[in-house]
Amino acid sequence: MVITFLTDFGLEDDFVGTCHGVIAGIAPDARVIDITHGVRPGHVLQAALVLADVLPYMPAGVHLAVVDPGVGGSRRPIALRDGEGRLHVGPDNGLLLPAADRFGGVAAAHELANAEYSLQPVSRTFHGRDLFAPAAAHLAAGVALEDLGPPLDPESLVRIEVPAPEIGQNRIRATALAVDRFGNVALNLTREQLDQAELAPGTRVEILCRGDRYYAVFARTFADAPRGELILYEDSYRNIAVAVSRGSAAQLLRAQEGTELLLDLGRP
Amino acid sequence: MVITFLTDFGLEDDFVGTCHGVIAGIAPDARVIDITHGVRPGHVLQAALVLADVLPYMPAGVHLAVVDPGVGGSRRPIALRDGEGRLHVGPDNGLLLPAADRFGGVAAAHELANAEYSLQPVSRTFHGRDLFAPAAAHLAAGVALEDLGPPLDPESLVRIEVPAPEIGQNRIRATALAVDRFGNVALNLTREQLDQAELAPGTRVEILCRGDRYYAVFARTFADAPRGELILYEDSYRNIAVAVSRGSAAQLLRAQEGTELLLDLGRP
Amino acid sequence: MVITFLTDFGLEDDFVGTCHGVIAGIAPDARVIDITHGVRPGHVLQAALVLADVLPYMPAGVHLAVVDPGVGGSRRPIALRDGEGRLHVGPDNGLLLPAADRFGGVAAAHELANAEYSLQPVSRTFHGRDLFAPAAAHLAAGVALEDLGPPLDPESLVRIEVPAPEIGQNRIRATALAVDRFGNVALNLTREQLDQAELAPGTRVEILCRGDRYYAVFARTFADAPRGELILYEDSYRNIAVAVSRGSAAQLLRAQEGTELLLDLGRP
Repeated sequence: MVITFLTDFGLEDDFVGTCHGVIAGIAPDARVIDITHGVRPGHVLQAALVLADVLPYMPAGVHLAVVDPGVGGSRRPIALRDGEGRLHVGPDNGLLLPAADRFGGVAAAHELANAEYSLQPVSRTFHGRDLFAPAAAHLAAGVALEDLGPPLDPESLVRIEVPAPEIGQNRIRATALAVDRFGNVALNLTREQLDQAELAPGTRVEILCRGDRYYAVFARTFADAPRGELILYEDSYRNIAVAVSRGSAAQLLRAQEGTELLLDLGRP
Repeated sequence: MVITFLTDFGLEDDFVGTCHGVIAGIAPDARVIDITHGVRPGHVLQAALVLADVLPYMPAGVHLAVVDPGVGGSRRPIALRDGEGRLHVGPDNGLLLPAADRFGGVAAAHELANAEYSLQPVSRTFHGRDLFAPAAAHLAAGVALEDLGPPLDPESLVRIEVPAPEIGQNRIRATALAVDRFGNVALNLTREQLDQAELAPGTRVEILCRGDRYYAVFARTFADAPRGELILYEDSYRNIAVAVSRGSAAQLLRAQEGTELLLDLGRP
Repeated sequence: MVITFLTDFGLEDDFVGTCHGVIAGIAPDARVIDITHGVRPGHVLQAALVLADVLPYMPAGVHLAVVDPGVGGSRRPIALRDGEGRLHVGPDNGLLLPAADRFGGVAAAHELANAEYSLQPVSRTFHGRDLFAPAAAHLAAGVALEDLGPPLDPESLVRIEVPAPEIGQNRIRATALAVDRFGNVALNLTREQLDQAELAPGTRVEILCRGDRYYAVFARTFADAPRGELILYEDSYRNIAVAVSRGSAAQLLRAQEGTELLLDLGRP
């Protein structure tokens, strides 16, 4: 059984390794695939979107995710079964739902309340180690979802709002959702939305960002543009993103998650 | 058989991957769990404390650790068996002993002197690859500890001193031992020591750090404090730490490993 | 079967994890060893040299490498068999050849053109996920190299030039090829080349770098030099490198990949 694992723990500390150890102790035959642990600390929305994008590429299994700025507070620790039978474990702060929605939504949800399936005592600040990793490992080892704790009404689960773009005749107001290592800036804008705006490849688009103006070409891939040129393209998860060929768009635009971009399509 | 692996090698270079390759060549069935490779370069004390905190969460096996600023010098490469039968491999610079002490201390120690169980030739600067990883892999594959080289007197092994706090009636002088990704600053102070000082949750404590004064509340978890507020809390390894709710205490206090903090308990 | 994996994807994003997921879906029994994903973005030469240095320490298997600034352009995706039967998968931009040369050169090369062995559709910007990882996984699962696509003339493959040092009577002009986490600077200079120049251990060498002069001792290991002193030494891959004992040579010399160093051997 595969357990996928995504957090904002980073790899500088022992947090991720410790969870791996806990899982190996409970489910020695489970295979853990680390999706990433580089989510910016506490950025639940970013993590939720990555998880939704990536899980279709992962074998079905137990999907453990911990980005949990409210650890030790009143948010509930949960496990879900989605419409296709995949299991999801994490905090009830909206992190798990966009991914579960890709697989038919939440079929069943349970609170992690059964002390038999957590480490004892449960610390107040490291539920990844004490609650979530043990629950995922027990599920991978064959424990039934129903045994982890009382059922929850799927409608009662916390949802996070994904910011929507404003799409006008000539102007699109979009928000940067993520910046990757290469400085590519993914927007809250899909290929379908741009197609509705009838933007053709090769079109020049004006971008207004943090008070400065830039020109980008709507291109198919990095290699279509000369080095250093700004492009707008459909990224590999079908979001529209801004990139600089062999450079960093995030640096050029001084953009980060949450930065607003105004696209002017150059129409009269 | 599980091999746990902790170093200061980082993941930017091939050092860790190369050791994984060497282990896979010698012990194809061993499972390697990376605890962390993010120890600050050469920080033996920090690594020793992490190892001691984390190994209780790891399945028993071979525990490989390499933080080795003296590589190629006169420090001895060693392997140990602790009182509970776990095996530890690394340099004789104090790195392994706090962890071994958690499992009954050193029952037997051997110098890695048998050329049969190292790569040949042994380079002068990468003993992780040439000496330590091979020794750990051979142990995992069933080679006896005694076969790795001549026995050493456990009393002769190098120990590192862990700085002790000074605990007065109203003042505690503590030292930062570690800063994690979230900016939480762990002190050389345990919950038991604070309890002896009869500090009750909710108490306001003055912290003097690098010449500046701050106020912190002794709290149970991050969620107990308003965003941005400084708290003193028991971390998940039962050390007292300083944190900022949804912020970085290390940044606020300009604290790093070794920084001294003076806690004033506000008593007359 | 082992798949080794090297990229410039970093670990902050999901790129590496996603490829692991794709591989696990196609070849559930393959074991993936991450060599490193910390290659500087787009640095094909650096990656090619690391791969050539490291593969001799890896079990024979499928060697997947993706540093691919030309993704989506006209460069061909390829798989090779080397003279010893190891398989290599990656872009045809020179990345794979120095490693293949260590194992007898390229015995056979094929273009990854068979859509049966890639994900569908293939995105324009993430061939690691859609083309290269699937090809490596299918090879590990037993698909024949010949089935991946049409054969290519090995002579037609792209080669990258490794800069050569200029070795004079008294002066050596070398180039920094890589800087590691510890600030050690590896040069395009081998131990054999220094031996030809008859440089004896203990010799003092003047280094001219970015207009400043430094003195280094040709030493065997870090521990041979007092803290803070600059040394020239043979690193664990038999390249000559510059280091500072318990410090960072890269920081001291302000050197990075591509920086030129002039070594003056102090001869009249």
